[in-house]
Amino acid sequence: MPRSSAADAARTRAAIVERAVEVASVEGLEGVTIGRLARDLDMSKAGVVGGFGSKEALQLAALERAVEIFRHEVVDPGLAEAEGLPRLRAYGDAWIDYLRRDVFPGGCFLTSASSEFDGRSGPVRDVVDDALDLWRRALEGEAAIAIEAGDLPRDTDPADVAFAMLGAALALNQSRQLHRDRRATDRARRLMARALAG
Amino acid sequence: MPRSSAADAARTRAAIVERAVEVASVEGLEGVTIGRLARDLDMSKAGVVGGFGSKEALQLAALERAVEIFRHEVVDPGLAEAEGLPRLRAYGDAWIDYLRRDVFPGGCFLTSASSEFDGRSGPVRDVVDDALDLWRRALEGEAAIAIEAGDLPRDTDPADVAFAMLGAALALNQSRQLHRDRRATDRARRLMARALAG
Repeated sequence: MPRSSAADAARTRAAIVERAVEVASVEGLEGVTIGRLARDLDMSKAGVVGGFGSKEALQLAALERAVEIFRHEVVDPGLAEAEGLPRLRAYGDAWIDYLRRDVFPGGCFLTSASSEFDGRSGPVRDVVDDALDLWRRALEGEAAIAIEAGDLPRDTDPADVAFAMLGAALALNQSRQLHRDRRATDRARRLMARALAG
Repeated sequence: MPRSSAADAARTRAAIVERAVEVASVEGLEGVTIGRLARDLDMSKAGVVGGFGSKEALQLAALERAVEIFRHEVVDPGLAEAEGLPRLRAYGDAWIDYLRRDVFPGGCFLTSASSEFDGRSGPVRDVVDDALDLWRRALEGEAAIAIEAGDLPRDTDPADVAFAMLGAALALNQSRQLHRDRRATDRARRLMARALAG
């Protein structure tokens, strides 16, 4: 049998990461085990572990991919708009849309990972913390520009705007995932609009 | 050796449940295993499992205790106030205070359990769903009374008020637990006040 080419190896690695993201989204990152992925993908355990070396490396690869997806789905549509209030509104719309469309089958991957790892220490926790902190700061930065431009009241605290947007997204995620509440999307839209009304 | 009295058995059971709640709050309900609790409490596995029968029964007992604590910390202070807006404000204050004081070492137990189990099926998921649904309906009921009394604008949707309060609590929980952000308490207080301003 000929040895796999580098392209084959990259494709296999990508397939493992995609499956790890799906499993983690529904069952948590701790559900991502070498044995589970080997079964799901009909591969040997050695084949799965080969590209990563450890369960933690596999969790980190899944997390990295989830951050990439969030960036593509939520951040990029915002970056296409003018900075300040237009961009904040685009971020809010894309964030709600990302949750409404169940981009991850188990709801927001980063929210689940945050809840799962916030009480621990280690690289997985640090990556989640950094990713969500970066997002928070991006929102705060745009809010500051909106205030400077006079599109939000002078006395608005930019961090309060980011916090309110986060609240709307988290309430939507829980209402959809736990209660299967389809009307939550409209509630989140109204709450997001209110967060951006200053 | 004399056999344990019924009182001893109840005390042992309570100690196991308390430890299960602590472990689950930090590591998730899946972290609550018979072996882990036996080690932590210096008991035999048979001694731990004896009072419960299965890991799931132990998880359900921990969940029931967590709901009891939430009721004591958040619901009871509200029930002491007049219904409608005064009670909603008391609920909001107690909810934030419960998160600020880290009543559970790993943050809101029900939020963690929701995130951990929302993608699954079974009795643990059902109990979390029911408990949070009951809370949501209690908030909606008080909001409806506040609207009827003219303490919130006529055109307010009671479910929007409950949704906004949930958002403030979830944003506080994530900001404290993941980012260790001490200023989040004040942000949550402002956001909760806004949710109750109609």
